[in-house]
Amino acid sequence: MQTEFEPRNPNYDSAVRDSFSRQPYMADIGARIDLIDPGVCELSLGLRPGLTQQHGFFHGGLVAALADSAAGYACYSLFPENSTILTTEFKVNFLNPSQGARLRARGRVLKTGKTLFVCQADVYSDGDSGEKHCLTGLFTMMCLMGKSDALNLGREVVST
Amino acid sequence: MQTEFEPRNPNYDSAVRDSFSRQPYMADIGARIDLIDPGVCELSLGLRPGLTQQHGFFHGGLVAALADSAAGYACYSLFPENSTILTTEFKVNFLNPSQGARLRARGRVLKTGKTLFVCQADVYSDGDSGEKHCLTGLFTMMCLMGKSDALNLGREVVST
Amino acid sequence: MQTEFEPRNPNYDSAVRDSFSRQPYMADIGARIDLIDPGVCELSLGLRPGLTQQHGFFHGGLVAALADSAAGYACYSLFPENSTILTTEFKVNFLNPSQGARLRARGRVLKTGKTLFVCQADVYSDGDSGEKHCLTGLFTMMCLMGKSDALNLGREVVST
Amino acid sequence: MQTEFEPRNPNYDSAVRDSFSRQPYMADIGARIDLIDPGVCELSLGLRPGLTQQHGFFHGGLVAALADSAAGYACYSLFPENSTILTTEFKVNFLNPSQGARLRARGRVLKTGKTLFVCQADVYSDGDSGEKHCLTGLFTMMCLMGKSDALNLGREVVST
Repeated sequence: MQTEFEPRNPNYDSAVRDSFSRQPYMADIGARIDLIDPGVCELSLGLRPGLTQQHGFFHGGLVAALADSAAGYACYSLFPENSTILTTEFKVNFLNPSQGARLRARGRVLKTGKTLFVCQADVYSDGDSGEKHCLTGLFTMMCLMGKSDALNLGREVVST
Repeated sequence: MQTEFEPRNPNYDSAVRDSFSRQPYMADIGARIDLIDPGVCELSLGLRPGLTQQHGFFHGGLVAALADSAAGYACYSLFPENSTILTTEFKVNFLNPSQGARLRARGRVLKTGKTLFVCQADVYSDGDSGEKHCLTGLFTMMCLMGKSDALNLGREVVST
Repeated sequence: MQTEFEPRNPNYDSAVRDSFSRQPYMADIGARIDLIDPGVCELSLGLRPGLTQQHGFFHGGLVAALADSAAGYACYSLFPENSTILTTEFKVNFLNPSQGARLRARGRVLKTGKTLFVCQADVYSDGDSGEKHCLTGLFTMMCLMGKSDALNLGREVVST
Repeated sequence: MQTEFEPRNPNYDSAVRDSFSRQPYMADIGARIDLIDPGVCELSLGLRPGLTQQHGFFHGGLVAALADSAAGYACYSLFPENSTILTTEFKVNFLNPSQGARLRARGRVLKTGKTLFVCQADVYSDGDSGEKHCLTGLFTMMCLMGKSDALNLGREVVST
């Protein structure tokens, strides 16, 4: 799809898919990529018992985590090669309980920058009574130039 | 421990533990309760491969989810019997990467109310170079009176 | 304009204008109402020297204050008669410096509720190089039923 | 006062006072500096009619603006010479109505960085029944190196 953004990495699609495949947590919860466009990313996730809180809804923190990944990959699609991404901060409002068999998160870039990108992400649940808007949030992402996204940084100091 | 808050439910400790035990997501990630006091809750979580992002850190969304639960149970310890809790909104800042073998989240109530409670939560990681402050956040929680926390609300409309 | 929201107060337009006229701070900075529709409110503000920060831009806190009022009146347009409004919390991202001769803030309701309303507000500046998106933010507003908006609450305890 | 932070600019006190004196908006509302220490700044503000909302409280947006300046100058006290500051984003929770004759805002740095600083700010009102905690918030500030704080950037493009 044509978006308002011009990707700096011509292989943005495979760069996002490759990074996503190296996120064990996304595999652990069963999230998958549904769409990647320049500045846009959609993820989805099916319900299983281990993902719920005490009322049988998706756990709110997990819903925010899915939104965070969708926001991050929406930004990462616009990053140059040989860079990686860190979430600086995010803010979410829960609009409706996350009921239903499946969650869909859509992240889209609001503002590009040299270092900081601002993103909005929304999560929708696919319940009995149709799609419900569960969460909206704003995310600030940082572009770390010259750092490989594939590098294990486990013991390295990252300076923001 | 003595805190500035007077619990309205004399069985606040078992009420929190009972609710926590009915959150499959907390069991799924391996979180446990380390401390409950009136208006305070500490949770912790050990590292396992399925909880990381591409650099080997705890996934930021998961760190926020742990903070959300610590904040929620800090508030819930001050709720009356026959009530339940929903997260209305939150905001987190990531201060340092969540490196290390274990995360510790501490939630504490800043403001009680009739309906709304405001909480702060902080997450610390236990790495090679000592404890690091990974996340701080502000959370608004809603007290739903007359709703059992044990009720499966999967198909019920919850009005905020 | 037709919006997706049905106002509960048939006199919503005059209720918003009347409340706005009783906000001395809005008069003090020179803000005015440009548009009121159910669930939507636009305010604008002209530059004068007392409204700037050290670089000659509108002060960021002031930009957020204008967004807060636009968000609040977007919600208030959907409140019933004999109610008033309080901002519970808000979160803003600054996207571009607020340069130019005039600011325009647009608030729109994302989610109505019994007690809590969630709103998004955006601020645009009207500079030499056309309109710039300066700020986006999310706002939670509380509907206080049975409280007159015209009441001076200066010494009353308001419980949330 | 001794704080945990070491200022990089030995003249941090006069650098903050000088920048504050060049913020027309702070003079317009009548704010003053009460305290500057490395990583800490306190501002205060007296009530006058033009600063209130419809219930006679300080306008919430103004309270947030004062917090934003206190947070900003807490960070700026730790910046090197020949740099300036921009607020990237913030989030505030309103804990109690801002009633009383005077507001006091205290900003303190939580995390320093190369580019980004995270700050918390709290606002207290000085009412009949003693000091009340009105607002708490988290703020991200950006250090722009090599940009004079005294420069009028009115027509310059600032890239984040």
